[in-house]
Amino acid sequence: MSQYRIFNDEDAITYAREAAQIGPEVILQGAEIGDGNLNQVFKVCQPGDATGLIVKQALPYIRCIGESWPLTRDRARIEAEILLQHGQFCPQHTVAVLHHDVSLSAMLLEDLSKFQVWRQALLNDQYFADAPVQLGEYLALVHFHSSDFKLDYQTQLAAQRQFANPELMSISEAVYFVDPFCDHERNDVAASIRQDAEQLWADKALKIRVAKLKHEFRCKGQALLHGDLHTGSVMVAAGKLKVIDAEFGGYGPMGFDVGVMIANLLLNFCSQPSWSQQSLRIKDVHAFWHSFNTRFFLLASQTSDSALGAPGYISAFLRQVWQDALGYAGCEMIRRTLGVAHVADIESIADPLQKTASQRQALALGRTLIMQADQINDEQLKSVAFAYRP
Amino acid sequence: MSQYRIFNDEDAITYAREAAQIGPEVILQGAEIGDGNLNQVFKVCQPGDATGLIVKQALPYIRCIGESWPLTRDRARIEAEILLQHGQFCPQHTVAVLHHDVSLSAMLLEDLSKFQVWRQALLNDQYFADAPVQLGEYLALVHFHSSDFKLDYQTQLAAQRQFANPELMSISEAVYFVDPFCDHERNDVAASIRQDAEQLWADKALKIRVAKLKHEFRCKGQALLHGDLHTGSVMVAAGKLKVIDAEFGGYGPMGFDVGVMIANLLLNFCSQPSWSQQSLRIKDVHAFWHSFNTRFFLLASQTSDSALGAPGYISAFLRQVWQDALGYAGCEMIRRTLGVAHVADIESIADPLQKTASQRQALALGRTLIMQADQINDEQLKSVAFAYRP
Repeated sequence: MSQYRIFNDEDAITYAREAAQIGPEVILQGAEIGDGNLNQVFKVCQPGDATGLIVKQALPYIRCIGESWPLTRDRARIEAEILLQHGQFCPQHTVAVLHHDVSLSAMLLEDLSKFQVWRQALLNDQYFADAPVQLGEYLALVHFHSSDFKLDYQTQLAAQRQFANPELMSISEAVYFVDPFCDHERNDVAASIRQDAEQLWADKALKIRVAKLKHEFRCKGQALLHGDLHTGSVMVAAGKLKVIDAEFGGYGPMGFDVGVMIANLLLNFCSQPSWSQQSLRIKDVHAFWHSFNTRFFLLASQTSDSALGAPGYISAFLRQVWQDALGYAGCEMIRRTLGVAHVADIESIADPLQKTASQRQALALGRTLIMQADQINDEQLKSVAFAYRP
Repeated sequence: MSQYRIFNDEDAITYAREAAQIGPEVILQGAEIGDGNLNQVFKVCQPGDATGLIVKQALPYIRCIGESWPLTRDRARIEAEILLQHGQFCPQHTVAVLHHDVSLSAMLLEDLSKFQVWRQALLNDQYFADAPVQLGEYLALVHFHSSDFKLDYQTQLAAQRQFANPELMSISEAVYFVDPFCDHERNDVAASIRQDAEQLWADKALKIRVAKLKHEFRCKGQALLHGDLHTGSVMVAAGKLKVIDAEFGGYGPMGFDVGVMIANLLLNFCSQPSWSQQSLRIKDVHAFWHSFNTRFFLLASQTSDSALGAPGYISAFLRQVWQDALGYAGCEMIRRTLGVAHVADIESIADPLQKTASQRQALALGRTLIMQADQINDEQLKSVAFAYRP
């Protein structure tokens, strides 16, 4: 089995058996369980077992759209290499890649069936107090180890080339910074917030800020990003956390990963009717940033780069990451409200008035984060967020 | 002739003859005329002719240091490709590459014998009023055509990979941002300014700024830089200008090229005893920036990128390029005074007191440009520069 074919259940079993060297005496069953937009995901296990192995395979087009939108299968190689790299930097919080096959565009992953998707946990009001802290640790480790604080020029440039991911990151560029800020056919704008959207599309000052964020998303190659770090890319269990789905990864501004995560916590904040749940989300944002900021600072303090080790520089650098993050958080909140891909946190709100209020809140808070990124510090974020409570 | 060997005059003639398809009936003579630090340069021509062809060959080590500092010959390929690319964007001001041979690390260039090195012209108080304007045009064209204003994500990322130049740009990183800001063995600090140097090395606020400039030199891949755009890389003749020597090129912040050029004009400014020559240099700086700024604005205004075309963004972008440029200009002025490679403008001053005064002026002005980059606009630069006149 070496030539690419679109897997059925049997193919997935065969690949898993070969990759994990499971003998023919072991009976395996497999089923497609994927609900993502891009790939097939199979769970392969022994009959009766709750946990087994995961087979993820890239299709040569975008799954949720079909063959009319072709997409490089090379993204499977890139994703596997990023996950392996992140796994070296932070094995405790990166899904384990057990095997990957470039020609089949397939990889064998550890099965996280005992985990749940963090977004779903948040939707169920299940609180994982460690998750933001663990996520901050993950991001500090993977960003630091791929940054200039750790790598010399040649090693970092080689990494930038190895992990170059133009096809998928150009999709991010379009869906984050272009579509949501104009009346684009790919958008999905509810009639009830059409006026708010049109106001945003006419906001000249906002567009200047967004242009800069777009420019830096492409040209500010600071660290090897996850590239799609929303609460649906994070698996949680009691005391445990694993990050999955790195196919949009590549070099970019650290504030992008940080900001996308903050935005998804704030989108959940906007979706919550209760003050106590809202407060927990703000607490999560603070815990996440505090964990990231503290750990990155400690790691970077040990840099062997004498220039970057100048006293005071790391703090100044992290302040800029925070500002960048607020800008990207604002873009994520707006694109998840007006763009092609919405979030379940808000989409699942049954009451139409409450849903519209949450969407408005997301747009207004997103705009403020972009416009005032250089004025809002960590401590002020709470009062800024609560100011837009409907 | 296809296997690498270090050329002697005869080899250079043979290569030129083959590359330019010159028949055996034509008598050619050749002589090594290089005075650079890295390469051999031969002039090949018919006896009695003033102009012929130039053969440039990379040695597998740094010429001025010797075989103890090996250096990739691949830089010859990178330089040829950058010059060819820049030549597509701005043929009128880029030296023409007539042929290049990867295995020989050699290229055939147009002979600019009728031109002179701009630095030398400035040393001779010869005024080329068009030069700064032409240089601004060159830089606007090569930066624009390799930037995100012109290229989509995938094309720009492919260019970033094609022109990746880690070995030489890591040398730049060291000599611009590390060595001059500490007591490094590679430095060349005159005893008369040792105290000034030590004061600079103890300047904590300055080091934070320099760390940021270093970070962005590596991680801010905005455009395909020349990478070494000092007045010695510019050839001038009446009404004509050609840029040479792009081996330090690669993707980086646009402000780096702009700043290095401004710094070299300001270094000449610092070396000038007469007010009228000083004023001419400031005029050159303004003409250069005005030309670059105006042309880049016009080019970028035609971008097909709807986000970057947001009204007001290009001006904001160019203000940031200016600020970056002042920071990089400051680094260049300091590294040309304390670092391994000084400039003839100041080195050639015969009077020791005047020379020391010029060096002090360069250090003080350089420091101010770094520290106040975000406060000095185009119009204020003149008064800032004259404030440090000894």
